[in-house]
Amino acid sequence: MSAIPEEFVQKTTELSGEVTRPFPGSRKIYAQGSRPDIRVGMREIEQAETAASFGAEGNPPITVYDTSGPYTDPDITINLLEGLPALRAGWIEERSDSECLEGPSSEFGRLRSSDPELAKLRFEHISKPRRAKAGANVSQMHYARKGIITPEMEYVAIRENLRLERLKDSGLLRQHKGQSFGASVPERVTPEFVRDEIARGRAIIPANINHPELEPMIIGRNFLVKVNTNIGNSAVTSSIAEEVEKMVWSTRWGGDTVMDLSTGKNIHETREWILRNSPVPVGTVPIYQALEKVDGKAEDLTWELFRDTLIEQAEQGVDYFTIHAGVRLKYVPLTADRVTGIVSRGGSIMAKWCLAHHEESFLYTRFSEICEIMKAYDVSFSLGDGLRPGSLADANDAAQFGELETLGELTKIAWEHDVQVMIEGPGHVPMHLIKENMDKELRDCYEAPFYTLGPLTTDIAPAYDHITSAIGAAQIGWYGTAMLCYVTPKEHLGLPNKEDVRVGIITYKIAAHAADLAKGHPGAQVRDNAMSKARFEFRWEDQFNLALDPERAREYHDETLPKDSAKVAHFCSMCGPHFCSMKITQDVREYAREHGMSADDALKQGMQEKSVEFVKGGAEIYKKA
Amino acid sequence: MSAIPEEFVQKTTELSGEVTRPFPGSRKIYAQGSRPDIRVGMREIEQAETAASFGAEGNPPITVYDTSGPYTDPDITINLLEGLPALRAGWIEERSDSECLEGPSSEFGRLRSSDPELAKLRFEHISKPRRAKAGANVSQMHYARKGIITPEMEYVAIRENLRLERLKDSGLLRQHKGQSFGASVPERVTPEFVRDEIARGRAIIPANINHPELEPMIIGRNFLVKVNTNIGNSAVTSSIAEEVEKMVWSTRWGGDTVMDLSTGKNIHETREWILRNSPVPVGTVPIYQALEKVDGKAEDLTWELFRDTLIEQAEQGVDYFTIHAGVRLKYVPLTADRVTGIVSRGGSIMAKWCLAHHEESFLYTRFSEICEIMKAYDVSFSLGDGLRPGSLADANDAAQFGELETLGELTKIAWEHDVQVMIEGPGHVPMHLIKENMDKELRDCYEAPFYTLGPLTTDIAPAYDHITSAIGAAQIGWYGTAMLCYVTPKEHLGLPNKEDVRVGIITYKIAAHAADLAKGHPGAQVRDNAMSKARFEFRWEDQFNLALDPERAREYHDETLPKDSAKVAHFCSMCGPHFCSMKITQDVREYAREHGMSADDALKQGMQEKSVEFVKGGAEIYKKA
Repeated sequence: MSAIPEEFVQKTTELSGEVTRPFPGSRKIYAQGSRPDIRVGMREIEQAETAASFGAEGNPPITVYDTSGPYTDPDITINLLEGLPALRAGWIEERSDSECLEGPSSEFGRLRSSDPELAKLRFEHISKPRRAKAGANVSQMHYARKGIITPEMEYVAIRENLRLERLKDSGLLRQHKGQSFGASVPERVTPEFVRDEIARGRAIIPANINHPELEPMIIGRNFLVKVNTNIGNSAVTSSIAEEVEKMVWSTRWGGDTVMDLSTGKNIHETREWILRNSPVPVGTVPIYQALEKVDGKAEDLTWELFRDTLIEQAEQGVDYFTIHAGVRLKYVPLTADRVTGIVSRGGSIMAKWCLAHHEESFLYTRFSEICEIMKAYDVSFSLGDGLRPGSLADANDAAQFGELETLGELTKIAWEHDVQVMIEGPGHVPMHLIKENMDKELRDCYEAPFYTLGPLTTDIAPAYDHITSAIGAAQIGWYGTAMLCYVTPKEHLGLPNKEDVRVGIITYKIAAHAADLAKGHPGAQVRDNAMSKARFEFRWEDQFNLALDPERAREYHDETLPKDSAKVAHFCSMCGPHFCSMKITQDVREYAREHGMSADDALKQGMQEKSVEFVKGGAEIYKKA
Repeated sequence: MSAIPEEFVQKTTELSGEVTRPFPGSRKIYAQGSRPDIRVGMREIEQAETAASFGAEGNPPITVYDTSGPYTDPDITINLLEGLPALRAGWIEERSDSECLEGPSSEFGRLRSSDPELAKLRFEHISKPRRAKAGANVSQMHYARKGIITPEMEYVAIRENLRLERLKDSGLLRQHKGQSFGASVPERVTPEFVRDEIARGRAIIPANINHPELEPMIIGRNFLVKVNTNIGNSAVTSSIAEEVEKMVWSTRWGGDTVMDLSTGKNIHETREWILRNSPVPVGTVPIYQALEKVDGKAEDLTWELFRDTLIEQAEQGVDYFTIHAGVRLKYVPLTADRVTGIVSRGGSIMAKWCLAHHEESFLYTRFSEICEIMKAYDVSFSLGDGLRPGSLADANDAAQFGELETLGELTKIAWEHDVQVMIEGPGHVPMHLIKENMDKELRDCYEAPFYTLGPLTTDIAPAYDHITSAIGAAQIGWYGTAMLCYVTPKEHLGLPNKEDVRVGIITYKIAAHAADLAKGHPGAQVRDNAMSKARFEFRWEDQFNLALDPERAREYHDETLPKDSAKVAHFCSMCGPHFCSMKITQDVREYAREHGMSADDALKQGMQEKSVEFVKGGAEIYKKA
């Protein structure tokens, strides 16, 4: 019998309808890898046939990247109480370089697991934690450098390719040559390419061996640009159930990773529920929890306490840790005359500690010891930018760039341990200073993946900071940033609700996709081309289904033209039924088709005579509409 | 007694409360010019004093650009039935180069003014139209080239400067050096600079002599980036009252100009109501109305009918005309194999006409005659991009760029007539192809102001196209575009409601402002700096008031922390009351202040000892919070 009270079970195990509602016109498909247990989930959007008046032809289904995991697979029964299937368990086990522990090896983990008070909200099916065997290193980077292609690497290769080969005769692969500023995006991603990128540190697969439920994904400049979302409870406003719901909601809209920034109570237990049910990598900022353990007194933090927190979280399965190890004592005075000082919570905590002890922070001095922990579980570093600018005025200043240089040093140390690294970036930066951030990061951090918040390109639009920052995010993504941390409309004002999360994610999917297009990422334009063709052919349902947010697109259309007939109409509410701007080109094509010539010929050859004839025909067609 | 039925009067003359509600913490002010009748309206945002714990100091009021005209002046009684005060009437009259006509000189204008059926909805106080005397040219460009600085030019000079001189001791003028790609933005705008920019065609002041109600504004690469909004009725959905309300709503949120794209019935009368009550320049696409006059049959359009429409609208006071004179016969075949063909309504109409007649369009062949009309009223050209791309796939193609070259030719002809010109631009363009558009426009159109729609940087996000396009708009504005045409969330889906208009405008104000910042426009960072300082000092009310959308910022804040006490609290809902990231810098500064040293010194000099002391002090302060 479950120790969890009925009411809690009910709340925690029922996802709302809006979270689980299937995407219209879509189905879950799996691309098969080299072995039976490599099956890569994707979403396939079906398309209607082109209407006869446009030349009746089939339109191929479009495969899109899918972060929603089993939640959108009708063949899988979701049971939040049990967690998701452990997709990677076999892969981890067969490597034989890790072992199951008897229980948590962190002091805090043991305390929590043995506290009877917590039984009422503890996840019940906690596996025993797994750790590298003595002397072993279980990081993907370690395997890569040994020349091993792991199932995770093959998985992401298949995932990134999005079955583009199926479209090679469709015309949908047409796209502009990109400008990638020196990226090395291959025409087709091979497992070997993935291995090589990870070996040289240009990409990471965040995948803790204690989070076997996740579907591997890759973060690197030569892959699709990714989006991180943040969730997290606070003492008052969120319950465990809400956080799990938010995590699933985030994966629904396309969040590639999720950071759990909880600061309230029971964050250990909340994290367990999230991890066991998350198909995407989960990141945290361990210093937040450490601070809770010393009742918010930064100066009371110690290396021992922090170390215990790292182990606690690593054994739960956190995939990457934000660690502000670049906040060195010497940089703190550089922030004194800033307009907004230090705005990173982690940075501020460490600055306070440094000042209190007049010592370099233990994050910096103990960095190698941290690496030892990371590689025993394959936790990736997200080296935090504790001194990021909180206003345009403070952008690209000595404090920010000094810290970035230190992050580069630390990257090298982490790589000596074969530990995966990404680098966090700003913040608030006017457009013309954005590229300098990217260039410096690539140079000083040796092309380790850059992971940026925005940047916000102006300070004056609270309530619209998803937009002020998407402008910057699209640009820095174009210049080479590998993952964009989303910003919601509530930034600077309050805690995001579900609608804010949705808007924030879609906004960042736009920025990431705009970046892929500008870089000329192979196949990036497929969905745009399909959308444009559907638009030109008035296939309204396909337009909705191909949209990043199909539900909202349909809803907005229906506000003006709610009838179903409007969804097959060859006009829209913008120009109305009497004159459609796209109609003229359609008329030309129809005329050409009827007369067995190309559209170009229809216009060029004998234009005078034919055009009159065309218009006569066209005028008739026009009346029929 | 009024001929207008009571019910109509009531609906048409009452603006809703949300449109007329004053902005919080703001007052209308006027900057005085060289003569009593040059008084430039601006909005001044007051700021609270810095709290004692941050070093008690005054914060100067911030002057912001104000497009709302008399609607936000409590001293002016708005009477929509009578229209706005004719600010420019004296200036126009004293030039003695124009004369009042007996009545409309267009056939259509006469028909409408004498139709008794229309009395029930006709604006009652229509002035007699004014036209240049025979042989005269009343364009601002004509005066500029003769070396005359008009009151309009002085007005915009004062307006652009935003009383920055008042802030010279405040520290708020601090900003980053910009990257302007060759623009020539002066430190301070003088009337002579305005004159010179207009004389050489690099800027325009759209200001028809029949629209004396408008407050002059300038569109040019060396001035603040402007935003256009679109309104317009359609047969079913809008009334005259709604359109007037939408126009006022647009000016409230910062629309610098407004285009009336009406296609329904009574568009002549609707336009009159809009013009008489609009403090901003009004643009139209005359071919839309011409098409209505031939019942939607493009091939039946004639030069005579179009000419009559131009005169009709010019005598009502339309300030700029979109004219698709660059859609030449030879370009039409270039669109045949596009993914989305021709998507501009005006472009499509003209393409259809060209094909039907196998002739160059009368817009092209009669261009000089059109110029003669323009200069008699000072209507500016907005040379339309009828062949703009409707999808990423079609961006920067031969049709689009061919037309742009023709627009350059036409610009030269217009300038021979001293007629003001701006050039319309795309459309749908991936980020890396945007700059080519700007560079080509500057080169081929001789630096005439560029006026672009977006561009949208991806096709796949209907319902979020304000965002897909703001990403492109911010960039093209940075590269040199002078005015951005807004896009609402309903683009491609339906007709925008008031909320969509608001979101569209704020989104574009963000893009325009981000561009000003990146160009390094003098003073552009003032409001950002004030906001950041307010943020750092937890002056919540000032943060709301300084925001582009103060109402929404407050509303979002209050969703999480609704109490008034939260608006003076030294924390926010993001980190909560127990640890605020900005607190550490504040502690350092407070310590420094108490000990009579600079913040930098407090940290640098004798850091070890002092830092311990500081933390002791800081820890106490911390507990007090």
